[in-house]
Amino acid sequence: MERYDSIILGAGPAGLAAALYSARAGKKILVLDKGTPGGQIYLSSLVENYPGVKSTDGQKLVETMVEQAKSFGAEIKPFAEVTEADLKNKTLKTKEGTEYNAESIIIATGNRWRKLNVPGEEEFVGRGVSYCATCDGPFFKGQEVAVIGGGNTAVEEAMHLTNFASKVFVVHRRDQLRAEKYLQEKAFKNEKMEFIWDSEVKSINGEGKVESITLKNKKTGEETSLGVGGAFIFIGMLPNSELFKGQLETDERGYIITNEKMQTSIPGVYAAGDVRSSPVKQITTATADGTVASIVSCGGH
Amino acid sequence: MERYDSIILGAGPAGLAAALYSARAGKKILVLDKGTPGGQIYLSSLVENYPGVKSTDGQKLVETMVEQAKSFGAEIKPFAEVTEADLKNKTLKTKEGTEYNAESIIIATGNRWRKLNVPGEEEFVGRGVSYCATCDGPFFKGQEVAVIGGGNTAVEEAMHLTNFASKVFVVHRRDQLRAEKYLQEKAFKNEKMEFIWDSEVKSINGEGKVESITLKNKKTGEETSLGVGGAFIFIGMLPNSELFKGQLETDERGYIITNEKMQTSIPGVYAAGDVRSSPVKQITTATADGTVASIVSCGGH
Repeated sequence: MERYDSIILGAGPAGLAAALYSARAGKKILVLDKGTPGGQIYLSSLVENYPGVKSTDGQKLVETMVEQAKSFGAEIKPFAEVTEADLKNKTLKTKEGTEYNAESIIIATGNRWRKLNVPGEEEFVGRGVSYCATCDGPFFKGQEVAVIGGGNTAVEEAMHLTNFASKVFVVHRRDQLRAEKYLQEKAFKNEKMEFIWDSEVKSINGEGKVESITLKNKKTGEETSLGVGGAFIFIGMLPNSELFKGQLETDERGYIITNEKMQTSIPGVYAAGDVRSSPVKQITTATADGTVASIVSCGGH
Repeated sequence: MERYDSIILGAGPAGLAAALYSARAGKKILVLDKGTPGGQIYLSSLVENYPGVKSTDGQKLVETMVEQAKSFGAEIKPFAEVTEADLKNKTLKTKEGTEYNAESIIIATGNRWRKLNVPGEEEFVGRGVSYCATCDGPFFKGQEVAVIGGGNTAVEEAMHLTNFASKVFVVHRRDQLRAEKYLQEKAFKNEKMEFIWDSEVKSINGEGKVESITLKNKKTGEETSLGVGGAFIFIGMLPNSELFKGQLETDERGYIITNEKMQTSIPGVYAAGDVRSSPVKQITTATADGTVASIVSCGGH
């Protein structure tokens, strides 16, 4: 059984910020990540909205965070998937069988986009396929783009995209939106938006980058091609919280509920970043959550 | 009357993050600061705990944030002190008489060090009285100095001063420190530090510069004079929220209360960063607050 002051699950911006702060406070810190450090931003080819860092790519930004955490003594283990977690007793076990124990655990496992699972989707991530209008919208100035989905996020992000794109097609598999009424009203008035109902995406196509999407009308069965430079997919997100199911209080979607000190329903267990139930999920909010979880868990507050 | 989509008060990390996000979303943004942009971190000679940026100084970090906000079109006006604010109607007036109106207002005015309010304090600012050891420590090489306060900051700054001063007296009004245990342990081991308990500062004295401070023991009532060349005052902070007094809900210390969306008690008015009632105040939490205030005020959530 290996012992640490604090074990942090997930080496994205939230986990790395927590590691930096806790290690700098002199604590013995371990960060476990099931893959390579970085979280979702590792895949962002351009990050231009992180204050204090001029346009960079996600990989570079994360590498700096990793270096900083390590420079203060934090230990970071990639490819260390935790398969068992007893949060009350603060014990963890990884896939390859190592057992760990800590005074506090900070869960920073993030969330993930629900995928369409159609041909072209994975191939064109970062080259026209996006899961974040706030991040990537400005790259589609003057272009026509498609938004897939019909919930609040899809409609909000579609409206946001009209600040940049010349036209935004909203492709939804039903004949009406799931989004709230006031959002729908705003959206229907927006002259740059056009709605394509009862339609599913069959594939995303292009040479090197997205050029069109193939749609199938669910009522008529007809397949059509829609020429767009971008496909923004907002069919929901899922928190990476399955491992803790039944142990922690979560909201109805599985996001972990905390107070403003990032404390969960179990003393000594914190949640930070995208896995936490919170209204905004950005790099800044992730690093802030990690900071707060660290300072509170180190006894500063 | 000049009109903007959003006016941000204060050009520290919170205000600049909000400006970056809102300008990038295509909004017409004005940032007003009563001095030079930067807030408190402008004075930090070393920032090593902002994830994604390796050791830097506060000035450089802020200059990058200013450049980023401007690159997306935000307008930043330094030396524009707001002297009148009608938050319900979203109108502001600056000292030189310009009137402004906006759809939303983001208050990011920060906080400041609390003063002792004793004779000599104001007179000797910059001539022995200081609120920043990092800034002024090097001027006290080989001298004996006093630190007033007993919290984390007081103890950390006192330890920092031992790099320069020949002796650092820590004057605290209680019989034990409020600082975290690990800081206390480090401080008690430092041979250059001496603790004066149960004592209040009655006056700061000298001819042209600080030469001594007069202390009163709270238990015995005895007054003594302590010969020091510097008095560093770290007795807590006050929010820069006076201008909005009576208009917004605040906590008992005057910090503005918001929900997790940074919304204050007035619709369309947000608070972000150190002026907000929150458990942790760091650069990360400031930029996160600014991000959330921006995204919510731009209608994204």
